[in-house]
Amino acid sequence: MGEVTAQVPGPRERALQESCCSIGLPDADYERRAWTRLDSLTKPPRSLGQLEEIAARMAAVQRSERPTASPAAVTLFAGDHGVVAEGVSAWPSEVTYQMMANFVAGGAAINQIASFVGAKLVLTDVGVASDTSGLPGVVQAKVRPGTRNMALEQAMTREEAAEAVLVGIDTVRRLAAEGIKVIAVGEMGIGNSTAAAALAAAYTGVPVSRVIGPGTGLDDAGMTRKSAVVDRAIRLHRPLADDALGTLAALGGLEIAAMAGVFLGCAAEHVCGVADGFISAAASLVAANLCPESLASVFGSHLSDEPGHSVALVPLELDPFLHLHMRLGEGTGAALAIPVMGAACAVLNGMATFGEAGVTERPEDDR
Amino acid sequence: MGEVTAQVPGPRERALQESCCSIGLPDADYERRAWTRLDSLTKPPRSLGQLEEIAARMAAVQRSERPTASPAAVTLFAGDHGVVAEGVSAWPSEVTYQMMANFVAGGAAINQIASFVGAKLVLTDVGVASDTSGLPGVVQAKVRPGTRNMALEQAMTREEAAEAVLVGIDTVRRLAAEGIKVIAVGEMGIGNSTAAAALAAAYTGVPVSRVIGPGTGLDDAGMTRKSAVVDRAIRLHRPLADDALGTLAALGGLEIAAMAGVFLGCAAEHVCGVADGFISAAASLVAANLCPESLASVFGSHLSDEPGHSVALVPLELDPFLHLHMRLGEGTGAALAIPVMGAACAVLNGMATFGEAGVTERPEDDR
Repeated sequence: MGEVTAQVPGPRERALQESCCSIGLPDADYERRAWTRLDSLTKPPRSLGQLEEIAARMAAVQRSERPTASPAAVTLFAGDHGVVAEGVSAWPSEVTYQMMANFVAGGAAINQIASFVGAKLVLTDVGVASDTSGLPGVVQAKVRPGTRNMALEQAMTREEAAEAVLVGIDTVRRLAAEGIKVIAVGEMGIGNSTAAAALAAAYTGVPVSRVIGPGTGLDDAGMTRKSAVVDRAIRLHRPLADDALGTLAALGGLEIAAMAGVFLGCAAEHVCGVADGFISAAASLVAANLCPESLASVFGSHLSDEPGHSVALVPLELDPFLHLHMRLGEGTGAALAIPVMGAACAVLNGMATFGEAGVTERPEDDR
Repeated sequence: MGEVTAQVPGPRERALQESCCSIGLPDADYERRAWTRLDSLTKPPRSLGQLEEIAARMAAVQRSERPTASPAAVTLFAGDHGVVAEGVSAWPSEVTYQMMANFVAGGAAINQIASFVGAKLVLTDVGVASDTSGLPGVVQAKVRPGTRNMALEQAMTREEAAEAVLVGIDTVRRLAAEGIKVIAVGEMGIGNSTAAAALAAAYTGVPVSRVIGPGTGLDDAGMTRKSAVVDRAIRLHRPLADDALGTLAALGGLEIAAMAGVFLGCAAEHVCGVADGFISAAASLVAANLCPESLASVFGSHLSDEPGHSVALVPLELDPFLHLHMRLGEGTGAALAIPVMGAACAVLNGMATFGEAGVTERPEDDR
C-alpha cells in the first residue's frame, strides 16, 4: 500500500497532472450570447426549461454560437474486477468478455440505441481479464487484465490508475480530431457497481449502505455481502479525500478510471461529455476530484434505479432529465440523451425571434 | 345552459358515441409476446426499466411483434378562448393567430423539434378567432371562432364540443391511412391553461387552487384572478362528473376537445398517441371520461413545470419520463418522446438473445 501514499509521482501520474493543468471552464461569453438569443425567440422566456440550459451550456463548451450534437460517439470501456472473488456480483466475470463479443456482433442494447440515435460506438478494452485482441474493432488499451481484489489489496497502483485515466483522455483527443462534438460514456465490467459504490462512499463521505444496490441483479444476501466487502476495503485502504488518484487506485476500476479520463478530455477538447448512470457518476466524482473545472463540460442524462446514483449526484450538479428507471449501463442512458441535446441545439439555432416572426411580445414584459 | 343537460343527443354527439363504441383495449397477447422476447435479450431482466414497458405497450397498441415509432407526426390544434376577456393570460388572443403564422413559416420551437425528430407537423385550426385560411398548409376545421367566455356562459354547445372531438378523430384516421405509427399532440391557444385548469378540477375533483399555474407567464395577481375565474365558471355550470361531454362543453376549449379526439382516434386506429404537458393532460381526462379504454393507447412524455400537470396525471396512469421543466406546449415535450420510443422499439426488435449471442445466463436465474 505504500505506493498509494507515495510522495514522488511516477511518469503517468505526472502526465495526468499536466493534462489536468490545461483544463479550463467553458466560455461564459458564448453562454451569455446563447441566453440573449434564447430570450429573443418566439416562446415565453425560459419556457423550454432545461432544454434551454442544455443549449446554452453546449454553446459554452463548444465555444460556438451554433452548438451541435452531431456527430456524436458513445465510448464504452470494459474492465474486470478482482473483487468479484468476494461474491459481489450476480454474474461471472467471463460475461465481461462475452458482452464485448456481443457488442462487436451488434447484439447488445447499446448497439441498438447508439445506432438509433446516430452515434458511433467506440469499444475499448482497458482491463478485461480475457484477451479481446481477437474481437475486431476493439481498441486494445489494456492496462492490466482486471483490477486486484480491493478487499485484500489496492485495486491498482497509482501508475496503473493514471494510465487508465490517460486512455480515456486519449480516446477523446482522437474523437475530437475526427470532429466528434458529443461523447456519451458507457462501461461493461462485471463487479463495477461494487467499485463505484466504494468510490462514491470514499469521495462523498456518505455511509456505504446508502450507495449499495442490486447492480445487475443481486438479492438481499448478496447486497449485505457487497456492503460488507466495500466497508472492509475502505477500512483497509483509508483513502484520503484530498488524494483523488490514491482513492481511485485503491478502490476503483480500470474502466471507471478511463471514463473519468473521458470527462477530463472533453473539458480539454471543448467536447460535450454525457454521463450515464451510477458507474458514470462515480467516474464523474473521480474527474471532479482530479480537476473540479472538468465537470462543467459534462451533461447528465438519465437517473438510474441503482440507489447510489442519486447519492453520488449530490455534489456533482449533473441534472439527469430522463427518468426511465434504467439500470443497465453500457452508456444506454447517456446515448438516449443525445437526441434531446440535438433538439436543444435545433431550438437555439433554428427558431425565429419575435421580431423575425412578427409575433407580439408581452406588453408587460420586463425582461 | 339547457343544452348541457339535454337528454336527446344531437347528430355529432351520436357520431361521437358511435366512435367511442368501436374502441377496445390494446392487444394483451402482443404485449405478452414482447415481454417474452425482452426477457430473453442480452441484459439483466427488466434492466431497461420503462424503456421496455414502452416497447411492450407499443407492440400491444400497434398489434405488431415489431412495433415502430416511424413514421411519426405531431398534430397541433389551435383555438381561442373567450375567457381571455377576464384577464387570465399574459398574452393577447391575437398571438394564437400570429403563432400559427410562425408555425407555417417554420420559426417556432415545435418546428425545430418536430423536424429534428423526423416527425411531420400537421397544423389544424379548430377554433382560432381570426381567419387562418390565408396560411398555407393549415387544415381548416374551425368549429367556431374561439369559445365563449366560460365565466359567463358555457364555452361550447354540446354539438360544438362533439364536433371538435370528431375533428381530432378524423385527423388520426387520415394519418393512420398514410401509415403514421405514432402521433404526438400539441396545441396553441392563448388562455388554454385556464380551460385546462377548469377541466382538471371538474374531472378530478381537486381544489381549483391546486391546478392553477402561471401558464405562459402570469404574475401572482394574475394567478389569483385566474383561480377566481375558474371557481366562478365551475359554480356557474356545476358540471356533472359522469357527463364527460357536458363538462367539456361548459369549460373546455376547441383545441382541447380535438386533442381528446386524437387520443380516441389513436385507440381506434391502433396508433400510439403521445400526450404533452398540462393541456394534453386535461385532454386525456376528457378522453378517459368519454371512453376509459382509450388511454391504454396513449403514452406520457414530459412532466411540465405547470403545477396542474402532476395533479391531472394522478388518475391517468400516464408516466412522463422527460423531466426538463418545460412549460411551452405546442407538443414540444411529446415530440421529444418520439426518439425515446424509437429507441425502445430498436431494443425490442434488434437486440440478440442470450442464446444467439453465446452469453452466459445467470446460474441462479429463476425466471
